[in-house]
Amino acid sequence: MTADLSRFELDVRFAETDLMGIVHHATYLVYFEAARVDWLKKRGAFYQDWAALGAHLPVAEVKLRYKKPARFDERLVVETRLVEAKRFSLRFAQEALRSGELLCAAEVLLACVGDDLALRRIPDELAAVLGRGELARE
Amino acid sequence: MTADLSRFELDVRFAETDLMGIVHHATYLVYFEAARVDWLKKRGAFYQDWAALGAHLPVAEVKLRYKKPARFDERLVVETRLVEAKRFSLRFAQEALRSGELLCAAEVLLACVGDDLALRRIPDELAAVLGRGELARE
Amino acid sequence: MTADLSRFELDVRFAETDLMGIVHHATYLVYFEAARVDWLKKRGAFYQDWAALGAHLPVAEVKLRYKKPARFDERLVVETRLVEAKRFSLRFAQEALRSGELLCAAEVLLACVGDDLALRRIPDELAAVLGRGELARE
Amino acid sequence: MTADLSRFELDVRFAETDLMGIVHHATYLVYFEAARVDWLKKRGAFYQDWAALGAHLPVAEVKLRYKKPARFDERLVVETRLVEAKRFSLRFAQEALRSGELLCAAEVLLACVGDDLALRRIPDELAAVLGRGELARE
Repeated sequence: MTADLSRFELDVRFAETDLMGIVHHATYLVYFEAARVDWLKKRGAFYQDWAALGAHLPVAEVKLRYKKPARFDERLVVETRLVEAKRFSLRFAQEALRSGELLCAAEVLLACVGDDLALRRIPDELAAVLGRGELARE
Repeated sequence: MTADLSRFELDVRFAETDLMGIVHHATYLVYFEAARVDWLKKRGAFYQDWAALGAHLPVAEVKLRYKKPARFDERLVVETRLVEAKRFSLRFAQEALRSGELLCAAEVLLACVGDDLALRRIPDELAAVLGRGELARE
Repeated sequence: MTADLSRFELDVRFAETDLMGIVHHATYLVYFEAARVDWLKKRGAFYQDWAALGAHLPVAEVKLRYKKPARFDERLVVETRLVEAKRFSLRFAQEALRSGELLCAAEVLLACVGDDLALRRIPDELAAVLGRGELARE
Repeated sequence: MTADLSRFELDVRFAETDLMGIVHHATYLVYFEAARVDWLKKRGAFYQDWAALGAHLPVAEVKLRYKKPARFDERLVVETRLVEAKRFSLRFAQEALRSGELLCAAEVLLACVGDDLALRRIPDELAAVLGRGELARE
């Protein structure tokens, strides 16, 4: 596993399915968001910390490709990689997999904004953790 | 139509169904909330106004009885009645109906809290509109 | 208004916001889906009809660009255009607007699949309505 | 831990909060549902098994009391107890806790229905597991 990769597991909830019997396509954005939060936490960057610095990371752009459907109660793994870190933005590549099979791939561009929702530089405290691999878990 | 009653229409969205092909039971809380917002607006009480007064109305208790399922793209009507207004709380009775048939009934207790989420009296400006019927629409 | 364009109105629900006080980015997929359902209905194509033909239109790819945040209780308009109709797929361009200001733009590719979720041709009955403008409302 | 009790852990997702900065009240129904699915699985009853028997357990009634708000990224524990098993229904008592503090309490009545959504007896195969404690995990 390279330093920029983390894996996040989840079980599909009943409420996340739709009448076609599969996970609704909007749900993957929720999964990918949870996986990015996990990616940052595993490197020591907690939401509360950077929100306290007045920095937020809303989604600016996203591309999603849906390859296979997921179903209720399946165990999925989301693989998340940081593929680009600029002064005002981060780009992640993410994949939702089931037993190694790709279900949905995403490319997500996050912009760094302040409490006023205007663009601002990524705080040094946050930028510093981005090159890290996962911290050892105590 | 009595003064305390308002009706709110909505169309069931695809994303609101689950794998049983029916509206997921948690969705009704979203419908009922939207109908209460509408009830207040029709009497001249806009969320922004009372939020500016530092008053919020989170749900403190709710009872739901599910009688019949709703399905994708059905037109539902939510009937909302204020059944009790106290100094710190409001109680609404709500019903989701399809062509007059009861699908789900709710009793919802809202507590009035401040920006700190502590209990506070309902502001006079808000209390004043509760006895009103719907305002005429321009 | 050209034949391929339809407009769909909605009011932002409280439950659709997140802790940043804005509409959560996944919610736009729900809005855009509702607007496509409306687009098809306005041309005489009801979900029940083509589902009865064993045809479904899941999302295969989507690109979203978020330009401005939307907030609770705002009235949004979603403009939907069919930009490409092939034998197995449809491509829509959609925009969520507030008072004419662009909030979020989407490009959505739908694949036509059967009850078994395998690719199939778009049924003639459905293809026939795609070139239509909105039907007159009775 | 008594035989009828199971614990289910979850982390609050960003998308589950609302503009008040707390977990939206409808979200708890999703949490409680996931915890009941987990309760059944820990006793050997998988959704796929009883769905294959043509048995479903939709929510017929629910009472919720909201005591304290939960916030983004908090670790919650849902405690689930079966408090009544009848021929056509099950009643669960559930609590969402944070570090032992009660946030939300629920009483949930499930009805057993067939594929046609009409009431039916709980299948023996399912009834048999209800008195069990959690199975040992391999």
